[in-house]
Amino acid sequence: MSGAPAIVLLSGGLDSATCLAIASESGYDVVALSFRYGQRHLVELTAAAALAERAGVEHVVVDVDLSAFGGSALTTEVPVPKHDVVADLDADIPVTYVPARNTVFLSLALALAEVRGADDLFIGVNAVDYSGYPDCRPEFIAAFERLANVATRAAVADGRRLRVHTPLIALTKADIIRRGVELGVDYAATITCYDPGTDGSACGHCDACLLRRQGFVDAGVPDPTRYRGGSS
Amino acid sequence: MSGAPAIVLLSGGLDSATCLAIASESGYDVVALSFRYGQRHLVELTAAAALAERAGVEHVVVDVDLSAFGGSALTTEVPVPKHDVVADLDADIPVTYVPARNTVFLSLALALAEVRGADDLFIGVNAVDYSGYPDCRPEFIAAFERLANVATRAAVADGRRLRVHTPLIALTKADIIRRGVELGVDYAATITCYDPGTDGSACGHCDACLLRRQGFVDAGVPDPTRYRGGSS
Repeated sequence: MSGAPAIVLLSGGLDSATCLAIASESGYDVVALSFRYGQRHLVELTAAAALAERAGVEHVVVDVDLSAFGGSALTTEVPVPKHDVVADLDADIPVTYVPARNTVFLSLALALAEVRGADDLFIGVNAVDYSGYPDCRPEFIAAFERLANVATRAAVADGRRLRVHTPLIALTKADIIRRGVELGVDYAATITCYDPGTDGSACGHCDACLLRRQGFVDAGVPDPTRYRGGSS
Repeated sequence: MSGAPAIVLLSGGLDSATCLAIASESGYDVVALSFRYGQRHLVELTAAAALAERAGVEHVVVDVDLSAFGGSALTTEVPVPKHDVVADLDADIPVTYVPARNTVFLSLALALAEVRGADDLFIGVNAVDYSGYPDCRPEFIAAFERLANVATRAAVADGRRLRVHTPLIALTKADIIRRGVELGVDYAATITCYDPGTDGSACGHCDACLLRRQGFVDAGVPDPTRYRGGSS
């Protein structure tokens, strides 16, 4: 690759896989960044590595032990809520919210960006299907970008301008899937489920599975997700 | 303790030890937070643990592997610059700058604050002797505080107001030492040196040692630092 370097946060899920494809297609020389943060299912990281390899980009995995803090169903033994239809999803911020997660992840992306001389960060948040997480909103992204431009040697001493790109922010799940299909994203290789099997199969009933499944329906695209035990 | 909870970043150095004493004296129920971030000398963490124990506060240590990124003399094998007098210090941002370090550390403090129900974060940055680090400036702290108040469930859903306290920001090193002495800080237990011995002794010639030593001179306080091999 010969484009400008960019750091792309890659969880191994549908959104970040699409975000990676968009950054690559825009001509950036992408470094994908994932975290071993105490999540219960490391199968996400396996998916992220496979997606990065398929995209032909470097993949960096950083250890940051959020599980020491507790406070979320994604890092502790609190049960993941299950529902049958999207209409049943909680309107409040769900227990799967990880405190300050995107703040921590973008901060680490900023550190890597500075070391690699990258001015561009990509994160696959979207404000439409954002499950009530405060750190997926445009206000949050704008505040982080302002912070980045006073926090780093890159911006302060070298006069560089750091940007946080959120190409999915205004898209519905169906829009994201349609865009990813155009770009050749292999969604069978992505893991969105909050409670996946060790083989990467999805539960089909957590908030993330319900939103994802509805997205394929709305996009008119066959759902390649492997659901556990053949359940749907 | 029965005060409001607060998270205090504690490196084990002179500044953060003083910041801890100020937060405790202000009546907060302090949780001290340190990081195992790939620093070359873990003796800092031993000092931090001793300081927290002496202050009678909880101490949380989080692993975050910044060394995977490289880019700083504090996490890699780049030699630490040595000088004889403060006037020799580089005016530019030195190689000991760790990319986005305070952004990463404050982000993790924010995560812990949210889990613990704390609205108050303390960080011992100061803008006078700040060694040219961009993430020790008031503009940086203000931008982080703005971010915190759009990033978290605490602020967005619960209406809490997060604050980042920087009680040292306008103090000289001598001011900090005088304040700490009033509060009973044991500076012999703190480690400021960028190149300490495994026994916690200081080199006496790195930027941090020079600023610290001059601080004791200016404060008119005997310097309790143990310098390596009896050198000064």
